[in-house]
Amino acid sequence: AKPKVGYFYTKKKQSDMIEESLNRFLVRDYQSKPVVVKENETVYDAIGKMFLEDIGTLFVEDEKGQLAGVLSRKDLLRASMGNQDLNNIPVHIIMTRMPNLSVCTPEDSLLSAANTMMEKQVDGLAVVERREDSLKVIGRITKTNVIKAFVGIVKQE
Amino acid sequence: AKPKVGYFYTKKKQSDMIEESLNRFLVRDYQSKPVVVKENETVYDAIGKMFLEDIGTLFVEDEKGQLAGVLSRKDLLRASMGNQDLNNIPVHIIMTRMPNLSVCTPEDSLLSAANTMMEKQVDGLAVVERREDSLKVIGRITKTNVIKAFVGIVKQE
Repeated sequence: AKPKVGYFYTKKKQSDMIEESLNRFLVRDYQSKPVVVKENETVYDAIGKMFLEDIGTLFVEDEKGQLAGVLSRKDLLRASMGNQDLNNIPVHIIMTRMPNLSVCTPEDSLLSAANTMMEKQVDGLAVVERREDSLKVIGRITKTNVIKAFVGIVKQE
Repeated sequence: AKPKVGYFYTKKKQSDMIEESLNRFLVRDYQSKPVVVKENETVYDAIGKMFLEDIGTLFVEDEKGQLAGVLSRKDLLRASMGNQDLNNIPVHIIMTRMPNLSVCTPEDSLLSAANTMMEKQVDGLAVVERREDSLKVIGRITKTNVIKAFVGIVKQE
């Protein structure tokens, strides 16, 4: 006889189905445009850009256009408390730098990106493409992207 | 004949099941401890508290212990850019104040709290108890709480 799958829902089955659904969401389908500053731009300018773009995570590129670091609101707030002239501090002084960055690729699942954000306690990840021995930033994935996708599951038909 | 539910899974059915699961999550089961400052505390002290507690949202209470406002990292970063002495500015000058605050109750679903955060573009909500014509803060719910709960679905057995 055919197994009567539908008559025997269990919590386990339900969580399997949800996992299956969530694993179908890929970073590439939910990522936002990255906002990038150069490593010699000032902290003052970076804060301006963060407000202008209304985002919480900026990526820092070196002169070759490779990912060099990340700036969070927390990094910038800490710097702004330091009684220093923010017009005289380049962002590379205060950024979180490689190899301490957490990144993801467009092919990663949103679930794995979410897990990385939770583990590393960050608000967003750089979406990168590997190019020989360097990383090129091609997107940004944030807690907001993740929640919108998850909440979207129950709104879509 | 009995309907053979299990043989006819559709995307719709799956999203119904996910919605059902997500609606079972209540704010009260996932909320964090609120961190509160008084409305006459200085912006400088509020920033210190935000770093000490490592959180992104502080709640502001009036002298009666009622919810008066909210401070985000963005509010504090903006204030710190203003060339003012942060030791001389009380938080009530820069906070987002009632009635412009978004709040939720312990009995709300996590899904509705998540939707509110997305709509209002905030990182966290005060969890409140209504007391006559005022609100008492009893918790804090953030994007992190929401993601941990959602990601937890697929980790739990």
